[in-house]
Amino acid sequence: MASTERTFLKSDNTATVCPELFAALRAANVRCGDAYDSDAWSARLDDVFSSFFATRCRVFTTATGTAANALSLAVLCPSFGAVLCHALSHIENDECGAPEFFSGGAKLITCEGANGKLTVPALEAVLASKRPGIHQMPPRALSITQATECGTTYTPDEVRALTDFAHRQGLRVHMDGARLPNAIVHLGCEPADITWRAGVDVLSFGVVKNGGLSAEAAIVFDATLAQEMAYRRKRAGQLLSKSRFQAAQLLAYIESGVWERNARRANEAAQIAGRALAAYLAYPVEANMIFARLGTLEARLREHGFEFHVLPSGEARLVFSWDTPPAQVQRLVRCVEARLK
Amino acid sequence: MASTERTFLKSDNTATVCPELFAALRAANVRCGDAYDSDAWSARLDDVFSSFFATRCRVFTTATGTAANALSLAVLCPSFGAVLCHALSHIENDECGAPEFFSGGAKLITCEGANGKLTVPALEAVLASKRPGIHQMPPRALSITQATECGTTYTPDEVRALTDFAHRQGLRVHMDGARLPNAIVHLGCEPADITWRAGVDVLSFGVVKNGGLSAEAAIVFDATLAQEMAYRRKRAGQLLSKSRFQAAQLLAYIESGVWERNARRANEAAQIAGRALAAYLAYPVEANMIFARLGTLEARLREHGFEFHVLPSGEARLVFSWDTPPAQVQRLVRCVEARLK
Amino acid sequence: MASTERTFLKSDNTATVCPELFAALRAANVRCGDAYDSDAWSARLDDVFSSFFATRCRVFTTATGTAANALSLAVLCPSFGAVLCHALSHIENDECGAPEFFSGGAKLITCEGANGKLTVPALEAVLASKRPGIHQMPPRALSITQATECGTTYTPDEVRALTDFAHRQGLRVHMDGARLPNAIVHLGCEPADITWRAGVDVLSFGVVKNGGLSAEAAIVFDATLAQEMAYRRKRAGQLLSKSRFQAAQLLAYIESGVWERNARRANEAAQIAGRALAAYLAYPVEANMIFARLGTLEARLREHGFEFHVLPSGEARLVFSWDTPPAQVQRLVRCVEARLK
Amino acid sequence: MASTERTFLKSDNTATVCPELFAALRAANVRCGDAYDSDAWSARLDDVFSSFFATRCRVFTTATGTAANALSLAVLCPSFGAVLCHALSHIENDECGAPEFFSGGAKLITCEGANGKLTVPALEAVLASKRPGIHQMPPRALSITQATECGTTYTPDEVRALTDFAHRQGLRVHMDGARLPNAIVHLGCEPADITWRAGVDVLSFGVVKNGGLSAEAAIVFDATLAQEMAYRRKRAGQLLSKSRFQAAQLLAYIESGVWERNARRANEAAQIAGRALAAYLAYPVEANMIFARLGTLEARLREHGFEFHVLPSGEARLVFSWDTPPAQVQRLVRCVEARLK
Repeated sequence: MASTERTFLKSDNTATVCPELFAALRAANVRCGDAYDSDAWSARLDDVFSSFFATRCRVFTTATGTAANALSLAVLCPSFGAVLCHALSHIENDECGAPEFFSGGAKLITCEGANGKLTVPALEAVLASKRPGIHQMPPRALSITQATECGTTYTPDEVRALTDFAHRQGLRVHMDGARLPNAIVHLGCEPADITWRAGVDVLSFGVVKNGGLSAEAAIVFDATLAQEMAYRRKRAGQLLSKSRFQAAQLLAYIESGVWERNARRANEAAQIAGRALAAYLAYPVEANMIFARLGTLEARLREHGFEFHVLPSGEARLVFSWDTPPAQVQRLVRCVEARLK
Repeated sequence: MASTERTFLKSDNTATVCPELFAALRAANVRCGDAYDSDAWSARLDDVFSSFFATRCRVFTTATGTAANALSLAVLCPSFGAVLCHALSHIENDECGAPEFFSGGAKLITCEGANGKLTVPALEAVLASKRPGIHQMPPRALSITQATECGTTYTPDEVRALTDFAHRQGLRVHMDGARLPNAIVHLGCEPADITWRAGVDVLSFGVVKNGGLSAEAAIVFDATLAQEMAYRRKRAGQLLSKSRFQAAQLLAYIESGVWERNARRANEAAQIAGRALAAYLAYPVEANMIFARLGTLEARLREHGFEFHVLPSGEARLVFSWDTPPAQVQRLVRCVEARLK
Repeated sequence: MASTERTFLKSDNTATVCPELFAALRAANVRCGDAYDSDAWSARLDDVFSSFFATRCRVFTTATGTAANALSLAVLCPSFGAVLCHALSHIENDECGAPEFFSGGAKLITCEGANGKLTVPALEAVLASKRPGIHQMPPRALSITQATECGTTYTPDEVRALTDFAHRQGLRVHMDGARLPNAIVHLGCEPADITWRAGVDVLSFGVVKNGGLSAEAAIVFDATLAQEMAYRRKRAGQLLSKSRFQAAQLLAYIESGVWERNARRANEAAQIAGRALAAYLAYPVEANMIFARLGTLEARLREHGFEFHVLPSGEARLVFSWDTPPAQVQRLVRCVEARLK
Repeated sequence: MASTERTFLKSDNTATVCPELFAALRAANVRCGDAYDSDAWSARLDDVFSSFFATRCRVFTTATGTAANALSLAVLCPSFGAVLCHALSHIENDECGAPEFFSGGAKLITCEGANGKLTVPALEAVLASKRPGIHQMPPRALSITQATECGTTYTPDEVRALTDFAHRQGLRVHMDGARLPNAIVHLGCEPADITWRAGVDVLSFGVVKNGGLSAEAAIVFDATLAQEMAYRRKRAGQLLSKSRFQAAQLLAYIESGVWERNARRANEAAQIAGRALAAYLAYPVEANMIFARLGTLEARLREHGFEFHVLPSGEARLVFSWDTPPAQVQRLVRCVEARLK
């Protein structure tokens, strides 16, 4: 008989706020004289993140990852330009045209690539198919997703190869890092290694999927873009008056180390489940997501209360969060193993 | 010798989150399977607000009031249309062109009016100055601010006169209700009386200035606009994945009655201070803001730790919040009275 | 030894203005009191085209076909919507993002299809791959090119099948008729048969490629869209002050029958050349363009002064105009035949 | 008894095409192999205008002055910026929001000024009223109209004062030169003196009002802006395929000297009429337009077949063209003088 216990694996978007970030919200709930990034919390953001990334950078909080992505692309690509991205990317498939809206009509040009990853040959092929001249929108930006929409990661060398190619072609580089912490943890690298040091100009840095409540950030490594970002963010209704609560989440996220702890927990859950599901996997498990062709196992898992999405391509997507209970991961493992016997 | 105590009167934008809303955030911090308005909290919003407004309406949470305003205008006014608004309105002066951005290039046409209030004759004069034909952008929307940027309010009859005029001219009506609760409390009316019943099509409903953390709402009274609002909100990066925390704030705000209690506290503080400053007032005190030409009193108040903005016009703006300590209001009164003696 | 005679087959975009239209320009060059479509020439446009199309319609002249297409899409598709079109369509490949710009950020979704033609199954497959909900831009318009970019045509029944499908899905229909006269002549149908009677809502009607100097037209069959078109055209700088010269071209084009004569000449030239190149053809020859995989014949034709484009796909494109000299077409035939012997 | 002769003084927008430009169109009507500015006529534009302006510049033809203005502003001002302009300017009053559309939502900020002219103190006052920070759109461009909408002109020193101020404030400078030839003729200066040499970055250069059929030009003096202008023009549907006819008009306009002859004729007509109407003039007559408060003379002129606009402000506007028959100007003079006796 099937369990009535429910295990939520649809998305890390629904996880709880971790205690450290919730405590930070509470601590920021004091009377304060200033709004709109003029508060004491927001004032510390640039320093804290500059230390985190080991380079001078500017931090712009936003309410959503969609906004962080779209603002980043808008400062990197003119309205008449094109953005190269993977066919599976979030900016292409899941943001209802936010990049087009924020940029004033830029075009996304998609590339295929195994495991959700772009490659230089794939980019070259796309650029080769473009005619020179003014009849087509000129590519001006590249967007890389790290970790990818397939739960895989780019190594620092892989990122560098893409950004070197992009910069040689006159493209600026955005990284959609909605799950960057998961990638860092998997790769065992420094935050700098897969971002600015590997050639990224502007980064969307994930918080909400990894323990936050309502704060994401666009991190600007190229100081010349900061002023434009500031105006565009305000104009997009993405600068909160009570900015201290956004800043407080981000500060706690970095300073207490929960960015890493939470990502590690989520990744580990995926690893455990991934080992059990090894025979079904569509992609290597490198972050906190599993994509698997489950066949008849799908119905069985649903009977046992596991909730997850199945993509139009037929792959089931199981996403693990910082707060996915280990017992439920074990339950998943047992459920799979029982079937396999 | 001057006090070292600081009293923050720059804006209600910096107030604390009230206990009821903070508790609601905590209560919503449970594991949950659904995101993007599919959660149980968001599912209740339409019903709770429909009851509050005594009519069927649709609720769209946003991260900021700027977004609520700009999205509302974008669904009411085409990209080639014009929006009539007061010269002092927030959409004209404080949103870095968010209405122009969200609408795709609509134009704001400003009207003057005493006490920050629009009048039908002022609107008529503006429309009369427009040439017919396609050389000028056709006015398509009217935006009314309630309470106004001058801390005054429109009576239901005043709103109705404006909306009747607007609708006869083919304009749809937006109300910027960032301080609507303050207006309702002052007028002693029902929420419906100064909104849909008085002819408002879409309303920006204030929460952040009155005890909230990060949730505002655009309330759509005309159901035919709801689908467009949904797409535009998503596309603007204003639909939060952890929408339950936005919804939880709004539900608590309405269901626990704190919208009213908080607004009443702020208004009362303004009334007390306003009586003391009667000789200096620029406008009637009807909500939670005082505008005053303080003369030499300005420096004295600053010496005593009162922090407030002075507008380019020379008027000091003192804003009271739900959490402005009554003792500090009394201190302000004493400080003023000491001077007047 | 190779000829030094040059034969221009790159595009019908470079042809001369036919005598009838040039005479119309001269006749309109009289002192006149009114501009911006208020002149006597422009005043007759709607009637003349309504008669031509056998239904009431509104005519909006534009300076380019790009503008006619982009304005049409902008009135049919909201900024947050998507337009379905063929992967080879002009709006996707040759207009530097004009549809995205005029619409305020709509997205083009491309479909494949043999001979440059869309099919209902291809549209169904695209729609089936879209997730419901607000995370992807909702398809709102379909754009059909007649004659296609491959020089083929849709029969009235084929157009009707596409528009029926589109309308059932809630999509409005645009036809890019930059070469509509060529299609009408080939199909031997009435102008109505492949436009409004087959379900087209707004039509870009070609003139410049078929004997005009600087006038194209967007024809609006749905009267409810006309006012928006008027404002958008003006705002796009596409309403000429000396509109009588645009109108004069269009009136002469229709009333003197040159639209048909010119298209017939160009089509016949393509037919003659197409028969000679039958062994090389990539697509059926149904309008005034030939696409052919020429192999070593390509160099030979170039040596003999034939100028044409070769697409990235390797196909040569030979375009015939109303004024392509028959002797040069015969020269092409001889050149090909000499090679084939 | 009143004359039945009609004299068109509504606008120079309705004048005929002068013989030299019409002949140039005819001469360009030869078979040609290239389109979209690749033709031999377009290839000469930059050189001819660089000689005309005595500096290296880039020429971008457009179909309308509205497009030339809006494209110029779009390359000078970001979507989040503001453009300072006179309250009577064409870009504010007559283009249905083209600047807002082409720029992606920039805001026009208007200044008052006698005789339709901007002054540095007026600009200073506007800038002083702007708050610093990100809540208001930052001014980034200044637009000067030469000759003005009041038929007056700026001296080179006046232009220089404005552009010096603008550049010190970080604003780029656009000149709306729809009637630049009239200003040059009145001032007796070199074309360079009131354009780039006086600090103008991008110029809309008038042709249609002064003898052209369908060509205007945006002249880019700052080479770094040229590429963006090229893409924006194409994307706006303002690059004509049969560009040779646009170029042919512009080449003839400059090389045959008709730009000057035509402007001189129109100015002289205005001078003659202006002397007769001296008692009624609202502004000095310095170009080809007269603004006059005619009182009862208005009806009398209408009875005699003079057609002209009366502005909402009550001023009659009489516009003279290169082809206004001298006999009709004399008739106007006689008609006025008969009344004055």
